Amino acid sequence: MKMVVMVLLTMMVIGCSGPKKDSVTDVRAEIERANAQWMSALKEADLEKFAVMYTEDTKLLPPNTEILEGREAVRKVFGGMMDAGIHVQLHTEDVQAVGDVAVEVGRAKVIGPDDNVLDSGKYLVTWRKTATGWKMQRDIWNSSLPVTTPAES
Amino acid sequence: MKMVVMVLLTMMVIGCSGPKKDSVTDVRAEIERANAQWMSALKEADLEKFAVMYTEDTKLLPPNTEILEGREAVRKVFGGMMDAGIHVQLHTEDVQAVGDVAVEVGRAKVIGPDDNVLDSGKYLVTWRKTATGWKMQRDIWNSSLPVTTPAES
Repeated sequence: MKMVVMVLLTMMVIGCSGPKKDSVTDVRAEIERANAQWMSALKEADLEKFAVMYTEDTKLLPPNTEILEGREAVRKVFGGMMDAGIHVQLHTEDVQAVGDVAVEVGRAKVIGPDDNVLDSGKYLVTWRKTATGWKMQRDIWNSSLPVTTPAES
Repeated sequence: MKMVVMVLLTMMVIGCSGPKKDSVTDVRAEIERANAQWMSALKEADLEKFAVMYTEDTKLLPPNTEILEGREAVRKVFGGMMDAGIHVQLHTEDVQAVGDVAVEVGRAKVIGPDDNVLDSGKYLVTWRKTATGWKMQRDIWNSSLPVTTPAES
């Protein structure tokens, strides 16, 4: 009988520990790898590889447009950049992870076809862990450069 | 003996259920209440009531500036709006909640001192549940209006 009690107590301890959680360091490394893939897909103009890095229900919040939804919006916004020969360099500033959600703050440089810096900005992305890896569920960014006045632009 | 086994099995079921989780509907209602408080603190120019709605380690990502950190940054950015008689109307579009983190997408209208609409935009905020309620930990926004060209501005 003692054996049954022991087994049940062991099951309680194991059962309650739940699935193994990734550490924040692990999640940050996974997200930095995903960002490297994002950057190369954009640079190589591989729109399908790029689009599946977002969840089906993703929301994009680019400056100067309404809230956009889904992978079709991803294809439209970033396909336009690909056509213009624009790519982006991402630099993760910090990652917070809770369960299957991660929140990333980062900086971005927008690079033109002649390797000229078109914009320098920042972003907030929320990631969702799926069966096929971490995917972007919310993505918003803006410029960090001062507003140019008509005289300067 | 059967009794011991029964008690242990019951403990397993209860023990594994963990602390009671708020439903997403509850969290959304709490965040909408917090937003109502945010709007009124901004309109009433109550800077201290306003600043404590952000976590100590908050990051603000306003357009046309670098990433800003902490409540001192909150006081500077929103204190400037208060001085200019500007207030903001928020409208929550959706809330996702995982543990003590919530992700909110919303729309915002920036209102001038003569009740004129200065800007119409959107935001992504990540909230953290603390001992004193939900607080904003990451806050980024941008305009949804088209870019004005020098000729139009």
